[in-house]
Amino acid sequence: MVKAYAAHQAGAKLEPFEYEPGELGEELVEIEVEYCGICHSDLSMLDNEWGMTQYPFVPGHEVVGKVAAIGSRVKKHKVGDRVGLGWYSNSCMACEWCLGGDQNLCLTAEGTIVGRPGGFADRVRAHWTWATAIPEAVDPTKAGPLFCGGITVFNPIIQLGIKSTDKVGVIGIGGLGHMAIRFLHAWGCEVTAFSGSPDKEQEARDLGADHFVNSRDPEAIAAVKNSYDFILSTANANLDWDAYIAALRPKGKLHFVGVTPNPVSSQVFPLIAGQKSITASPLGSPTTTAKMIEFCAQHGIEPVVEMFDFAQINEAIDHLRSGKARYRIVLKH
Amino acid sequence: MVKAYAAHQAGAKLEPFEYEPGELGEELVEIEVEYCGICHSDLSMLDNEWGMTQYPFVPGHEVVGKVAAIGSRVKKHKVGDRVGLGWYSNSCMACEWCLGGDQNLCLTAEGTIVGRPGGFADRVRAHWTWATAIPEAVDPTKAGPLFCGGITVFNPIIQLGIKSTDKVGVIGIGGLGHMAIRFLHAWGCEVTAFSGSPDKEQEARDLGADHFVNSRDPEAIAAVKNSYDFILSTANANLDWDAYIAALRPKGKLHFVGVTPNPVSSQVFPLIAGQKSITASPLGSPTTTAKMIEFCAQHGIEPVVEMFDFAQINEAIDHLRSGKARYRIVLKH
Repeated sequence: MVKAYAAHQAGAKLEPFEYEPGELGEELVEIEVEYCGICHSDLSMLDNEWGMTQYPFVPGHEVVGKVAAIGSRVKKHKVGDRVGLGWYSNSCMACEWCLGGDQNLCLTAEGTIVGRPGGFADRVRAHWTWATAIPEAVDPTKAGPLFCGGITVFNPIIQLGIKSTDKVGVIGIGGLGHMAIRFLHAWGCEVTAFSGSPDKEQEARDLGADHFVNSRDPEAIAAVKNSYDFILSTANANLDWDAYIAALRPKGKLHFVGVTPNPVSSQVFPLIAGQKSITASPLGSPTTTAKMIEFCAQHGIEPVVEMFDFAQINEAIDHLRSGKARYRIVLKH
Repeated sequence: MVKAYAAHQAGAKLEPFEYEPGELGEELVEIEVEYCGICHSDLSMLDNEWGMTQYPFVPGHEVVGKVAAIGSRVKKHKVGDRVGLGWYSNSCMACEWCLGGDQNLCLTAEGTIVGRPGGFADRVRAHWTWATAIPEAVDPTKAGPLFCGGITVFNPIIQLGIKSTDKVGVIGIGGLGHMAIRFLHAWGCEVTAFSGSPDKEQEARDLGADHFVNSRDPEAIAAVKNSYDFILSTANANLDWDAYIAALRPKGKLHFVGVTPNPVSSQVFPLIAGQKSITASPLGSPTTTAKMIEFCAQHGIEPVVEMFDFAQINEAIDHLRSGKARYRIVLKH
């Protein structure tokens, strides 16, 4: 039996929950969970915000653990290997996106906590391709958030071909934004942090930001007109996107990884005149995730985390809901 | 003296108008105008819609003519060469965009009809880089519209790296859209035309469209969900952009070359999940314009035009305003 934590209805507290996982599929690995981050999308799913949650619901999709068992047709990983698992746990492996290396764009990709039990448990399963080997140089206690929040902000760097000479901006200094600043700083870019919390300026600079702009000050944003090749929005808020598009240089891209409550909207003429784009991306593919974790090992990049025991799981969730997490929460057994 | 046609106030009829052009700048060419297309932006400027028109106003930025004189430092073109001239007539030649081959993105690029007299005249001037040699195989009577409308829809094919294997859509079958269909068909793409005028279906197919979708029928658009790598909007209307974004395949791009009255707006989640983009572009650089005209020569691509004498200039303008032009109007001396 797998020992997990589950909610039995929308927004409910998590309670100990056991389930029988059945025989291990031949292409699957079973991971013994050591650590698991909590992501805002765990809360969205817990609350059934997206209307697709099945109860009892076991959250958890920022898993770090050791391979405990492998199916007969697993082509990578052996028992005892330390791996990470993120939002996706399987994909069809046969469509043009899977065969083309964009498994994250597979139209039937399986979410780790969508219609199946996630990582708030002692064990969790995934297709072997979606389990990513964690190098020795990466601290496993902090690595969990890299597999969802981390890859979410690393993926656009690869997808858009961001160059070290690019001038970049990051909107929002939170669970995703703080990792984005570290990645882009290590990438060699000149990084500007945009935040509505001026008291975060020193933290942003400590994370690697070269400049700080108060995103609640329209004059401050107007002053950086025509400055950036790439602005990454990690915010879940409705901002004045026209102002950020004006802050882009010609060919610049305003990139979304955070879902905003309202649609994004932009005047068309400034997009045309400056050949500017509004772009967006989901979690990365297995290959991009592997590149990310190697980049983390090379540059000593890790998220800033607060640790909680799995026994404190509801306190940890309340802490995340309060907006006080600095910056990601990791649960440990 | 240059013999031109000018309006003396917003929306006025054009009247014969002479001006003294002064000495020819050393990097400029003077073109003896043979033909000049009329573009919707001539009307917008004539009516001072964009608040930047100077009167007396000489429209005309789809020029075909012969080089009549060259300045002392012109590095290309000789007297007698046939050239085309479009929206841009000069750029600084020193900024990163000019030096990088993106002269069309120069922040101080000069518009042919912005603060200077355009091509509704017997002569017009431009920096030599912005005059494009016209190959023998291209019919000069019809070539004018290629230098504004044509390059507007050809440029994104180059900028976005559209491939022959891409499935593409064109929204709007008008001055720009009909050329876009011809270009994309010759590019080897499977082309779908979207139009609110079902009576244009046969014309769209004759131009090279493989499929036709009635853009006023929401069910018809919903039926082509997840179908296109690239949708080019040439429409100047507010459409249901979320429906077109749903019609894109993963990594697909909804590209704007036409300014819409309202801002473009999109839900963020579908952009993220499918790694989709909203992109846009202006007229092309001199190099891209040269590639376009060579591609036209190679594939026999030309716009569908109606010819008017310069003496009928006001009738021609009224015809364009009426929305009845099929599809571009060219004035001839």
